[in-house]
Amino acid sequence: MRLSRYFLPVLKETPADAQIVSHRYMLRAGMIKQASAGIYSWLPLGYKVLKKIENIVHEEQQKAGHIPMLMPTLQSADLWRESGRYDDYGQEMLRITDRHDRDMLYGPTNEELITDIFRSYVRSYKDLPLTLYHIQWKFRDEIRPRFGVMRGREFLMKDGYNFDLTKEEALHAYNRHLVSYLRSYERMGLQAIPMRADGGPIGGDYTHEFLVLAETGESEVFYDSEITDLTFGDRAVDFDNVAECQAVLEEFTSRYARTDETHDEALFNEIPEERRRTARGIEVGQIFYFGTKYSEAMGANVQTADGQQVPVHMGSHGIGVSRLLGAIIEASHDDKGIIWPEGVTPFHVGIVNLRQGDAETDAACQAIYDSLTALGLEPLYDDRDERAGGKFATMDLIGLPWRITVGPRGLKNGVVELTSRRTGESEEMPAEDAVKRIVAIYENV
Amino acid sequence: MRLSRYFLPVLKETPADAQIVSHRYMLRAGMIKQASAGIYSWLPLGYKVLKKIENIVHEEQQKAGHIPMLMPTLQSADLWRESGRYDDYGQEMLRITDRHDRDMLYGPTNEELITDIFRSYVRSYKDLPLTLYHIQWKFRDEIRPRFGVMRGREFLMKDGYNFDLTKEEALHAYNRHLVSYLRSYERMGLQAIPMRADGGPIGGDYTHEFLVLAETGESEVFYDSEITDLTFGDRAVDFDNVAECQAVLEEFTSRYARTDETHDEALFNEIPEERRRTARGIEVGQIFYFGTKYSEAMGANVQTADGQQVPVHMGSHGIGVSRLLGAIIEASHDDKGIIWPEGVTPFHVGIVNLRQGDAETDAACQAIYDSLTALGLEPLYDDRDERAGGKFATMDLIGLPWRITVGPRGLKNGVVELTSRRTGESEEMPAEDAVKRIVAIYENV
Repeated sequence: MRLSRYFLPVLKETPADAQIVSHRYMLRAGMIKQASAGIYSWLPLGYKVLKKIENIVHEEQQKAGHIPMLMPTLQSADLWRESGRYDDYGQEMLRITDRHDRDMLYGPTNEELITDIFRSYVRSYKDLPLTLYHIQWKFRDEIRPRFGVMRGREFLMKDGYNFDLTKEEALHAYNRHLVSYLRSYERMGLQAIPMRADGGPIGGDYTHEFLVLAETGESEVFYDSEITDLTFGDRAVDFDNVAECQAVLEEFTSRYARTDETHDEALFNEIPEERRRTARGIEVGQIFYFGTKYSEAMGANVQTADGQQVPVHMGSHGIGVSRLLGAIIEASHDDKGIIWPEGVTPFHVGIVNLRQGDAETDAACQAIYDSLTALGLEPLYDDRDERAGGKFATMDLIGLPWRITVGPRGLKNGVVELTSRRTGESEEMPAEDAVKRIVAIYENV
Repeated sequence: MRLSRYFLPVLKETPADAQIVSHRYMLRAGMIKQASAGIYSWLPLGYKVLKKIENIVHEEQQKAGHIPMLMPTLQSADLWRESGRYDDYGQEMLRITDRHDRDMLYGPTNEELITDIFRSYVRSYKDLPLTLYHIQWKFRDEIRPRFGVMRGREFLMKDGYNFDLTKEEALHAYNRHLVSYLRSYERMGLQAIPMRADGGPIGGDYTHEFLVLAETGESEVFYDSEITDLTFGDRAVDFDNVAECQAVLEEFTSRYARTDETHDEALFNEIPEERRRTARGIEVGQIFYFGTKYSEAMGANVQTADGQQVPVHMGSHGIGVSRLLGAIIEASHDDKGIIWPEGVTPFHVGIVNLRQGDAETDAACQAIYDSLTALGLEPLYDDRDERAGGKFATMDLIGLPWRITVGPRGLKNGVVELTSRRTGESEEMPAEDAVKRIVAIYENV
């Protein structure tokens, strides 16, 4: 993309009402614009990152054998009356009346709707196991929306639902989700720690929240420092293998890691003192096993091999897709702006032309742009007639992890400059080598 | 995908309340399920086609230089009061009150919101031309929703907005949209004819609707039969070239083609009688140039080169993404089910195993499945323990354009059967040749 043809409305001033760094940078980098309280338009740059995150979630869910679909945003109140949650949910549920005076609502979650779909079609144990998921906009009418997309009212969430014949099989689905979530977050450049959590309004005894450590986190967390040494890495995993998924669960949840909701001071104090950590965390996902809570209330039964009717065992599993942008920025920035991990960066590399209009420099930039594009990468080429300082400031603010700087002086020596946003280190090299380096960097992302 | 692991709840019986063929087949093929009146869940098969259509729209819009972003579903009523449309829009606008008693609405379109974004950031003619678009769910509280996704209440639409300094430049944007729409529909296997239309509540003197001819269409249309001979084909087009885009507009709109709203009997009768056609059509898109209607009402001005403030020239351009599924099925089906065009089919090819459990047949199916998958294609492998008749009926109903049938008798002679869903013709050939044929078919899709 050539910047002269893009819509990237960066702001020089820090917006007054943005209290946390991710909110400030998303506004300044022209990623979002508030449409009304807690509701945002995703400007082109923000939309690109949102899509990258969505794609990672889709890919990892499908690798785990989970099936994508899409439920609508508006739901009938009737289903929620069946489950008993219509009254339980307070004012955070946006209630709507349509022209025929029917009670509707903007879905804050989808247990009822998916259970209704299941019971409409599935009759036999032979159709299990089944896990369906979708990525759809939700609404939660927060009394005081704040922190930008971190606590918005209209937000994008992935929510998945497993249906299994037995508790054991449902717990395998739970483990599959844990594994796929670990992989997803790591691809986004995040360390998200599964912590024992509280069921809340969804219900369920088995539940883990995934938290990203960050000063601005809404939860206080307590953990054994050994847990931050764990990484999933690129190990292969067979999602059909019960023992293998169970082993990952045990590896990642056997050490103490809890939010303030479930914190147990006595247990915490059993950890050697030098490993005890207290910090703040941002919740970016949660997995639940809640058994037959919804299937019993809504009559979602299947026939077993010996002809009995039994309620299906369920769980639900969510990733906060839109809030992840905020979480990633909270975890990865400096005082100049955002530093995108390679897995979610909106453009793979920035190209800065130090002398726009100079025929040789323009041609060199264009050649680099064309090579990268032909290799399937997306560069953002700052081809505006601006001063170098302004171009660098924009690139730093929007946080592309790599920058190629092209100027007449370097070209005279046959070199361009390749700069890492994270370290700030620059290296001079021929343009073709810079292109090769960028290709190599993204080969394994 | 192996069918035993998929969620494809096909129905044997025709749902009683479905009046048109696309609605019937989408329900029977397990593509959608009604959640409430005019609101649908997209089951996995339907969701896959929806995504294919979305991707074609995204690709063609971006080829035309238009920039993707995303506006929220809920909007504040204030912006609609500014444009004067809050009162104009009748009961089809779903009005919502949040917990703080603020007036909100579920966006039926986005002229106000995009104009607000534009005026917040863009000050100078130097930032023009600019075309932004998004694909987002909309809501229109139809008094009598019907025909499935063809006239739903919650529906997915692509809407794009161009901002230009002059009327001439805005008309070039109009033409770019016309070209990109022609390309998009053709990739979906549709002939959509641009017809002179009426501005309606959006406003505008220049507007064309794109109509797909089908018996179940909601509009009566009148056209010169020569128009159905026109195809865009794979001609290259330079979207920056004003004359080139204008020539396409002229080629595709110079013959008589109008809906009943703009029909002119006298003009129609000037066409030689043998070329006069009356038919029904399904509206799948519309483009508008409406000048400064919104920019004047909402103060969206830019500074010209000589320092003047002028309101920006705008147009808006929509494609009915979710309704396109219905339109495609109306245009492409037979009495056995859907016939997907290759460009939007949910799976590229079906594999039918005639003797599940027979080691040699299973291995042959698996080998074909693995080859196709390795080549980047998505087969749907019916690996259920069902009779051949039932498997064929399912494949015919869900409409995959190609089927490979594998059975012990054929394997003894070293062949499988490749069948075209459209013609019903079958050919026997070695499995590797069938794979090669499928690859060749999709190479240019």
